[in-house]
Amino acid sequence: MVDTPLLDTVTLPADTRTFTRDQIKQLANEVRSEVIDAVSVTGGHLGAGLGVVELTVAIHHVFNTPDDKLIWDVGHQCYPHKVLTGRRERMRTIRKGGGLSGFTKRAESEYDPFGAAHSSTSISAGMGFAVARDLDGRNNNVISVIGDGSITAGMAYEAMNNAGASDSRQIVILNDNDMSIAPPVGAMSHLLSRTVSSGGYQALRGAAKRIVKDAPRPIKNTAKKAEEYTRGMFMGGTWFEELGFQYVGPVDGHDLDALIPVLENVRDMKTGPVLIHVVTQKGKGYAPAENSADKYHGVSKFNVVTGEQSKSIPNAPSYTKVFANSLIHEARKDDKVVGITAAMPGGTGMKEFGQVFPDRMFDVGIAEQHAVTFAAGLAADGYKPFCAIYSTFLQRGYDQVVHDVCIQNLPVRFAMDRAGLVGADGPTHAGAFDIAYLGCLPNMVLMAAADEADLARMVATAAARNDGPTAFRYARGEATGIEIPEDPQPLEIGKGRIIREGSQVAIYSYGTRLGEALLAAERLDSHGLSTTVADARFAKPLDSELLHRLAREHDVLITIEEGSVGGFGAFCLHDLSASGALDSGVKIRTMVLPDTFIDQDTPELMYKQAGLDADAIVERVFAALGREQAAVRA
Amino acid sequence: MVDTPLLDTVTLPADTRTFTRDQIKQLANEVRSEVIDAVSVTGGHLGAGLGVVELTVAIHHVFNTPDDKLIWDVGHQCYPHKVLTGRRERMRTIRKGGGLSGFTKRAESEYDPFGAAHSSTSISAGMGFAVARDLDGRNNNVISVIGDGSITAGMAYEAMNNAGASDSRQIVILNDNDMSIAPPVGAMSHLLSRTVSSGGYQALRGAAKRIVKDAPRPIKNTAKKAEEYTRGMFMGGTWFEELGFQYVGPVDGHDLDALIPVLENVRDMKTGPVLIHVVTQKGKGYAPAENSADKYHGVSKFNVVTGEQSKSIPNAPSYTKVFANSLIHEARKDDKVVGITAAMPGGTGMKEFGQVFPDRMFDVGIAEQHAVTFAAGLAADGYKPFCAIYSTFLQRGYDQVVHDVCIQNLPVRFAMDRAGLVGADGPTHAGAFDIAYLGCLPNMVLMAAADEADLARMVATAAARNDGPTAFRYARGEATGIEIPEDPQPLEIGKGRIIREGSQVAIYSYGTRLGEALLAAERLDSHGLSTTVADARFAKPLDSELLHRLAREHDVLITIEEGSVGGFGAFCLHDLSASGALDSGVKIRTMVLPDTFIDQDTPELMYKQAGLDADAIVERVFAALGREQAAVRA
Repeated sequence: MVDTPLLDTVTLPADTRTFTRDQIKQLANEVRSEVIDAVSVTGGHLGAGLGVVELTVAIHHVFNTPDDKLIWDVGHQCYPHKVLTGRRERMRTIRKGGGLSGFTKRAESEYDPFGAAHSSTSISAGMGFAVARDLDGRNNNVISVIGDGSITAGMAYEAMNNAGASDSRQIVILNDNDMSIAPPVGAMSHLLSRTVSSGGYQALRGAAKRIVKDAPRPIKNTAKKAEEYTRGMFMGGTWFEELGFQYVGPVDGHDLDALIPVLENVRDMKTGPVLIHVVTQKGKGYAPAENSADKYHGVSKFNVVTGEQSKSIPNAPSYTKVFANSLIHEARKDDKVVGITAAMPGGTGMKEFGQVFPDRMFDVGIAEQHAVTFAAGLAADGYKPFCAIYSTFLQRGYDQVVHDVCIQNLPVRFAMDRAGLVGADGPTHAGAFDIAYLGCLPNMVLMAAADEADLARMVATAAARNDGPTAFRYARGEATGIEIPEDPQPLEIGKGRIIREGSQVAIYSYGTRLGEALLAAERLDSHGLSTTVADARFAKPLDSELLHRLAREHDVLITIEEGSVGGFGAFCLHDLSASGALDSGVKIRTMVLPDTFIDQDTPELMYKQAGLDADAIVERVFAALGREQAAVRA
Repeated sequence: MVDTPLLDTVTLPADTRTFTRDQIKQLANEVRSEVIDAVSVTGGHLGAGLGVVELTVAIHHVFNTPDDKLIWDVGHQCYPHKVLTGRRERMRTIRKGGGLSGFTKRAESEYDPFGAAHSSTSISAGMGFAVARDLDGRNNNVISVIGDGSITAGMAYEAMNNAGASDSRQIVILNDNDMSIAPPVGAMSHLLSRTVSSGGYQALRGAAKRIVKDAPRPIKNTAKKAEEYTRGMFMGGTWFEELGFQYVGPVDGHDLDALIPVLENVRDMKTGPVLIHVVTQKGKGYAPAENSADKYHGVSKFNVVTGEQSKSIPNAPSYTKVFANSLIHEARKDDKVVGITAAMPGGTGMKEFGQVFPDRMFDVGIAEQHAVTFAAGLAADGYKPFCAIYSTFLQRGYDQVVHDVCIQNLPVRFAMDRAGLVGADGPTHAGAFDIAYLGCLPNMVLMAAADEADLARMVATAAARNDGPTAFRYARGEATGIEIPEDPQPLEIGKGRIIREGSQVAIYSYGTRLGEALLAAERLDSHGLSTTVADARFAKPLDSELLHRLAREHDVLITIEEGSVGGFGAFCLHDLSASGALDSGVKIRTMVLPDTFIDQDTPELMYKQAGLDADAIVERVFAALGREQAAVRA
């Protein structure tokens, strides 16, 4: 063991290439400590990164990054990678405004050739790099690291099916920790478990060091040797081989004496697509994480010694929790109500639903396409499925929403959590587009909850509406703290509500910005502008009567929503223009998310940047009326 | 052999249940003739249906449809199924206005429990029916029939991964004809070929009759027997078994003596998920189809005796052909230009591109998600990918467009054929939503071609623009017949063009409706309304200057597009309202596709129904001006 802190000598991965095996081991330990320490002060994704410390160090040691392209799937395991690739000093800014992203990001480093955050894209992207290299006649390696959860998504299969039939040299490292965010489900998970628990891998664990020691290095006929000992000594992998990948493994992903020679051999093989099956332990090397059920997947700030996370005391339940309770309430009344999640039982509240109704909750894995059409099948046979998928992930099932649900007018309910801006998770997890991409679809009913009482009513509305598809969106995080009705009643479809009455300015809010609209109204009133605030509740069908009344009876009409152009505001404009109501010259302004992807920050600052807070509303009203901007902040 | 025409005695599948084996064979022959005859007068999908005549007859004979749920994947093979399920009399209305759909359709028959038209949905939907049955405690069977092309899509894998881990009883019939629309690509296709060409299947072909004859019927321990002879006598299927499916096959799908006992045995097995691998021949039993390269996948009307298809003489090249030629032109100038198709080389023009540049064309299989991210990977490494995907199918890659392309601002080019209404293929193939679902995305540049010269320019524009994503849409079918520039020059980004100048009415057209706008303008002029027509070319970025000029200088401004709400018209409204240009009282009306799915018909009638023809424009202008509707047609 050496005593010098090696990590201080490593600015970039190239600095590790000449390290001895012992130095690499020491470096891995230091990287692990660094990641634990950094995340303890920032919060963020921890468990996944700890699981791949050795793998990360080994890859950068063996491969010639950044010329060799290293693509991390999802990217929440990339913290050790960031430590090693010139971003160590900025680790304590991670997920903060202006700081490092919590995922890989092209704009951040040339060592991130392809950004991520949604799962299962890395093999497709890797194939793009591999084909580009071949067309250029270059010789670099392409390595995609994908988890056993991510590999269950259809997209990963599409990529393997395509890559496996090509002779392009591409390395896929399957990081098998038997965990994605929740334990993975599905046949692939069973298959991997069987492979790992088979005799070959168990024998390997003991024999690994001996095998590697016995292997002549440099191996003369590397490809042949690699094939011999991977196929002969190891087991499993038929499934991948049938897809055209050469299978190597399983390899203990924490044993650098096993891992490094395998990576070196694969690097030197120069054959077509290869899959290296690496077995790791999520949360490895940090006892509190190892012992936790979720392996510290995502954590708050914590005490490094005890592992205790600092918890802010919530003022109100989360919208997710309100959704779960409301769905449980409906399911008690109607045994046709069932719940579906695509590998997010915790995040969507389906876990709690499943605890009460284990036979009526279905976690289909990272498989949004399948989730939607599975729900459509259930609906076609008389069930009332609630498909709980974050707004951003429902994009993965879009065609199925159009085709299997809307064209067939089947009563599938979409519960869209994390609609709007989401804070530290940044642009890749924002739910910015669902109003536009669902609102254009015939037969769809669209709602947005402004508070938790309305969310409960919208769950009841969706349960009651059985003649077509319904979707409702709600925000990430804490609700407003108001009382929730004990037995929420369905809303009248397509009817909004007036929250306060005025006569000069009308603010027509869809969803979560209602609170800011009310703040703005108070300010406008204090400036002598009598202000009406209405909550649209429905973007589709619009409450056209209410909309027309707001336009007719006010000088200025502001629409506001936490979504892109082409959504609620657009539908209001279409409706008013069609009837000629715009011709009379009401000053209508639509407030939507700006035409840009907004980087992570605190929610307040993100809303300010987006121009969707009370200040922005007041400014917009004043500008519409031609009043001085200076008056706004008075 | 019997002489009576058996098909005349079959109103519904139940009528076939008591048929003898010889009667079933005769029925299959009659169904085949009926399908050939019907399609010869209507045109439509032929080859796929001919390949499954025996399978269709056998399924309805063995299973208790419609209580047993039979789900055809894609559905273009469903013509024999329609003949047998009460729709024989209407077969000659197929794909015509008011007639039968060319696919399965819930509204059409209780024998169509789940409609289709996009591929690879049947296993997911089937699982929905299977789970609903289990929850209800019912006992019906669920059978999904999926082709070897469709099973390459990620969605099918997601469904198998989920179904294979469940113990829900579900039957998947893999109809392996080594053809989807084009020959399938990818590792799965090779895997199936290996399975079929292995000794087991070849031996089976000769031995099938003997095996079945020797099997005791009724078989006492059916499940065990089935397993014995499927596993013992047949080969292959490991891949599916590793996913948790019991594998049965391969079975000759044209040999009713083999097929019927297998279906009966599987029906009686009462175990979890089963996959029956059936080998068929696309176009089977009709020599002209069998001998054709595309197996008469989709045909015009034809002469039954000769197989000769009636071809209308086109007045102009198809937009597809113009796209292909334009891309070839660009690729000759720039060796970074590459082309990608998701299993539609013929339909997208990529086949022609690939003939000129075989190393630069990539058919990734039915895998739109992978196609988009593969393209993003190529773009990230310096290539200029053109991803040619129909508007309706790009919905399958939506999340990847948002996430891997737009968030990373990578220069992937999307060539969206079949944008707008598509005639006989009906609502499932219409490209209605792309303007809305892409227009809301930051970084995206969106164009629509009004004619083939502009399409050529847009290909040049997309090739030249290398600092972010670009998408351009164009119509199905024949172009307008105008001259195409020999060396098309890139358009200025975000600039439209004025086609004719007037002073009272402005029609601002995006894409294909430009011709109707010009017709309407002539009519309006003749009514004394001086009319401007402008072609927007870009929906994003909008030509805001032109838009404002049109609004400022005219009494009425009509926007028109072949797309849903939330698209080009909405962007115009957003832009005008933001600047206060609406406050002055210009009469603006947006003309978009109606909020309904439009059934198949002739294009002209569909445009009339949609309210997007010259008549509708004139009416809309008159209504905006408060003139009498009666004057319109004068």
